[in-house]
Amino acid sequence: PDTGRRLPWSTGYAEVINAGKSRHNEDQACCEVVYVEGRRSVTGAPRELSRGQGLCFYYWGLFDGHAGGGAAEMASRLLHRHIREQLKDLVEILQDPSPPPLCLPTTPGTPDSSDPSHLLGPQSCWSSQKEVTHESLVVGAIENAFQLMDEQMARERRGHQVEGGCCALVVVYLLGKVYVANAGDSRAIIVRNGEIIPMSREFTPETERQRLQLLGFLKPELLGSEFTHLEFPRRVLPKELGQRMLYRDQNMTGWAYKKIELEDLRFPLVCGEGKKARVMATIGVTRGLGDHNLKVCSSTLPIKPFLSCFPEVRVYDLTQYEHCPDDVLVLGTDGLWDVTTDYEVAATVDRVLSAYEPNDHSRYTALAQALVLGARGTPRDRGWRLPNNKLGSGDDISVFVIPLGGPGSYS
Amino acid sequence: PDTGRRLPWSTGYAEVINAGKSRHNEDQACCEVVYVEGRRSVTGAPRELSRGQGLCFYYWGLFDGHAGGGAAEMASRLLHRHIREQLKDLVEILQDPSPPPLCLPTTPGTPDSSDPSHLLGPQSCWSSQKEVTHESLVVGAIENAFQLMDEQMARERRGHQVEGGCCALVVVYLLGKVYVANAGDSRAIIVRNGEIIPMSREFTPETERQRLQLLGFLKPELLGSEFTHLEFPRRVLPKELGQRMLYRDQNMTGWAYKKIELEDLRFPLVCGEGKKARVMATIGVTRGLGDHNLKVCSSTLPIKPFLSCFPEVRVYDLTQYEHCPDDVLVLGTDGLWDVTTDYEVAATVDRVLSAYEPNDHSRYTALAQALVLGARGTPRDRGWRLPNNKLGSGDDISVFVIPLGGPGSYS
Repeated sequence: PDTGRRLPWSTGYAEVINAGKSRHNEDQACCEVVYVEGRRSVTGAPRELSRGQGLCFYYWGLFDGHAGGGAAEMASRLLHRHIREQLKDLVEILQDPSPPPLCLPTTPGTPDSSDPSHLLGPQSCWSSQKEVTHESLVVGAIENAFQLMDEQMARERRGHQVEGGCCALVVVYLLGKVYVANAGDSRAIIVRNGEIIPMSREFTPETERQRLQLLGFLKPELLGSEFTHLEFPRRVLPKELGQRMLYRDQNMTGWAYKKIELEDLRFPLVCGEGKKARVMATIGVTRGLGDHNLKVCSSTLPIKPFLSCFPEVRVYDLTQYEHCPDDVLVLGTDGLWDVTTDYEVAATVDRVLSAYEPNDHSRYTALAQALVLGARGTPRDRGWRLPNNKLGSGDDISVFVIPLGGPGSYS
Repeated sequence: PDTGRRLPWSTGYAEVINAGKSRHNEDQACCEVVYVEGRRSVTGAPRELSRGQGLCFYYWGLFDGHAGGGAAEMASRLLHRHIREQLKDLVEILQDPSPPPLCLPTTPGTPDSSDPSHLLGPQSCWSSQKEVTHESLVVGAIENAFQLMDEQMARERRGHQVEGGCCALVVVYLLGKVYVANAGDSRAIIVRNGEIIPMSREFTPETERQRLQLLGFLKPELLGSEFTHLEFPRRVLPKELGQRMLYRDQNMTGWAYKKIELEDLRFPLVCGEGKKARVMATIGVTRGLGDHNLKVCSSTLPIKPFLSCFPEVRVYDLTQYEHCPDDVLVLGTDGLWDVTTDYEVAATVDRVLSAYEPNDHSRYTALAQALVLGARGTPRDRGWRLPNNKLGSGDDISVFVIPLGGPGSYS
């Protein structure tokens, strides 16, 4: 809904609720400017030096809920606060051009034990210390914030009844760099001078097959007596016992034949293809927040151990390129990408933005709306249909369009 | 040593033994043409149809041994036989243009249960069966051959005393496609019309950090009381207990600070950087064959559980491109790549091959020799030095140069 509030950087936003089938939107979105105040003197520097400026970051989040809206709603309220908490310790360090200290003394004033002269020990593989970048500290802060958010959902699920789970796609702009963190099947791309730069990948039973199978192999108790960690191209039938069937183990990317044994009649941990791929015949997305109560249908077997709350974080340096007003970062939930290719999105970016003046603030909102409506389609022939007459996305669809070069002024 | 035998496809080969420091070469190489006779009637087709042609594959292998030459020697004698065994079941299937059957009946003549009409069950995620390609069957055959080779080494290590382990880089040419399988830190690149196409990646404690840490996290008993699965940028000192130090967990690609606890004083499972990176302070390569007896120094803790015998297999379709006589696949052990970049190799390919007539069979051997000698350097200033005066590779160096377009005639 258009609140009339202008978003930072003139960000465009639009959403539709599963093509009008229900009134409840399981997608949630959040856009904030967050100020991080440093903790006092984490590096042990004298007090007058450590009372520096805090840090500001810009934040956009898309949370695609499933099995209830609780997790998405909670994440949209709190995830950026967890990120702020994680960054608090780093406020001084990130503004200091020298490499981050490896070790922080507990008492201010204690000599910094990261002094390289302490490091020369007899262990040959440690002859040099690892260089850790500022950038990797921000990545680590975002990763840990996702985990703490997920742990908070686990703690509070009884009291506040956090239902369901959600995919989380989050953008943090801090000190000249854009961090795109993705846990789930949403997607982010940059469209720059017509060129497409992927900024995320999807985490599904297909893309994470080997991680899931390895976990089932190493911890067979997580499979109960109902599942096998082996993959088969279709369900094995009891009458095929003793015959030889194609399979894939967790170490394999190719296929081979194996003789079917009794255990192979169990349901495969990972099955199906594309949008129908499932873990434990239940869930089609393998990373995200929440889902602590998720069980296999008509069973008590928990699915959460196979889901990861950790995002993949990609970094884009905004200062490395002179961006024009038509360069944008597009974030969308799977409702957009299920029916729209990256190239179609890039074409819509070009078509819509060129119809507006470069300094017209509403052009990014118009673009977000065009993307969302293009994926939903229009009602025709008993369904929402795309121009090519295929069915539109029946899913919730949420889209952010973040301009990378003007009219937003970044700090 | 030049045996005078001409290798298939006029392949060039050259080796040096760690710059003359010892007489024993821990590298082994193998180049063979292997005929695969089919098993009788695996698909249950009538006998007269199944007595088809066998299959022929071309095979090149480089085995870089460590801690003894036994594993490399055994792999160079036997790995291609394991591949042949795995392909035996596939001889008919690979020559039949229709998709591979999902299930092979045990008794010839039994109706083929891969008939799609059997598949339409109530399980929604199985509504379509997975399409398995011929190519992925060859990949699976090579993957399983590596595992069976490793298991044979485990079985025979007492009797025949298989010492040490080896990296394995293997090329199989079969039915128009080149399969490059790599387990270890050797490398393969194609140089085609001056362009570099990477055909492998290296498996080291750095590139496999997250796999190793995850295993240590899920199976802490494998770490004994000596190691921690956490990564630190340097060894933690006892006096740092209670201070906050940078660390990475198995789920993280970034870094964060954690308070040092007693457990963190254990030695990290993965430590060091570059050529000095080690698993359990011992081994610098994380995939390969053998190493069943490898223990942590002055401990009984086995390292083998952290090593994988599975290769990554990349496929290159030779028929998709018209190759010229200067297009080559270069295989080298790490002794080559430690001191030579892909670009330097491509430059040497250009320089050496252009000095010979395109139909001169000796040009690929001359190129292999140039690559090996270039990486070893020449004796000067008390050491083997490269033209840029840096030290040459003190390691064993073995190189195959496989021409992709003439004068070899492929079948």
